[in-house]
Amino acid sequence: MSKGILTVISGFSGAGKGTVVKKLLEKSDDFCLSISMTTRDPRPGEEDGVSYFFVTKEKFEETIAANGLIEYAQFAGNYYGTPRKYVEEKLAEGKNVILEIEMQGARNIRKLYPDSLMLFITPPTADELERRLRSRGTETEEKIRARLSRAYEESEGIDLYDFIIINDDLDKCVSDVFESIETAKRQPVRNEDFIGDLKKGLEKFHKA
Amino acid sequence: MSKGILTVISGFSGAGKGTVVKKLLEKSDDFCLSISMTTRDPRPGEEDGVSYFFVTKEKFEETIAANGLIEYAQFAGNYYGTPRKYVEEKLAEGKNVILEIEMQGARNIRKLYPDSLMLFITPPTADELERRLRSRGTETEEKIRARLSRAYEESEGIDLYDFIIINDDLDKCVSDVFESIETAKRQPVRNEDFIGDLKKGLEKFHKA
Repeated sequence: MSKGILTVISGFSGAGKGTVVKKLLEKSDDFCLSISMTTRDPRPGEEDGVSYFFVTKEKFEETIAANGLIEYAQFAGNYYGTPRKYVEEKLAEGKNVILEIEMQGARNIRKLYPDSLMLFITPPTADELERRLRSRGTETEEKIRARLSRAYEESEGIDLYDFIIINDDLDKCVSDVFESIETAKRQPVRNEDFIGDLKKGLEKFHKA
Repeated sequence: MSKGILTVISGFSGAGKGTVVKKLLEKSDDFCLSISMTTRDPRPGEEDGVSYFFVTKEKFEETIAANGLIEYAQFAGNYYGTPRKYVEEKLAEGKNVILEIEMQGARNIRKLYPDSLMLFITPPTADELERRLRSRGTETEEKIRARLSRAYEESEGIDLYDFIIINDDLDKCVSDVFESIETAKRQPVRNEDFIGDLKKGLEKFHKA
């Protein structure tokens, strides 16, 4: 059985990452979602162990010290991190583990797991991003502008990612994400056993 | 309109590359096949300008001297090369240009066109490769063993390629090749205009 692919999914706030990830998990049992640990307060409707593991600052720092996180970052005064144990167990079981994380965390994953797959989800245009953020109708003008300003900063870092997935039509976007992961499985680096078996099987024909 | 992808398709002799390429060309008008130039004699059924451009050694060397080939290699005493003009015109038109070439030529393409896409087609096992070569029933034992020996040598170079495509079921293989090319189109390096437009559209929200 081959190892799963650690798949990072990032994207602008308002790009629809959450919905894409939810659909992807529904589509196939080959995927599972890593749940982040955070020190921020739960929002209404968020459940501990489902949305996040909600912990105190002390507990978070103990977990860092025990090497229990594969990456962590501070963002708006709170810690966010990815618990190591779940990720490594599921990858070993052959599952593709999805990390829905910010660009700062993605950079750390890229260094630690060079064979991770990094996907960046974006609306088709900047105008469409603005339209989606405004259409939520729940945020102040100031918050919307802060998200758009952050999107500008993130647009400078898109080259970090393996593939850009445009979220225009949701079903197309989910199938593009799926297709990108399937394609990544064909990289030689993920098929060392297969290549080894081929070489071994062909060796007897080799003229020295 | 975005530029097409220069797609190199290599694979063991007997892997079924030719059939895969034929099916791919039938599947979509987005693809076209580069026709190689060679100094070897036409085999029965091969047509000039369809299978190859058949030329003399003198003509081939003139074309090299005029920088008219993007790569060439010598193989079994004959020259094989890829005429530049057709490839560059079709890429500019947005077509994905398929080069069905040997590993030696593929190495040259990788250096000259770092953003080419390199696919390697292989049967699922070494035994299956042997079975396919023998089932043709047209070649001497010596020729079959020479092909298998060459396959061993090529198996050492598979890491050069972006993706390994297993040809077990033909339709699945063709759709995997298609999917790999579609996925490659999502690489940031092939979407510089798109990223540029996003940045430009978001710039006005940036807080200095």
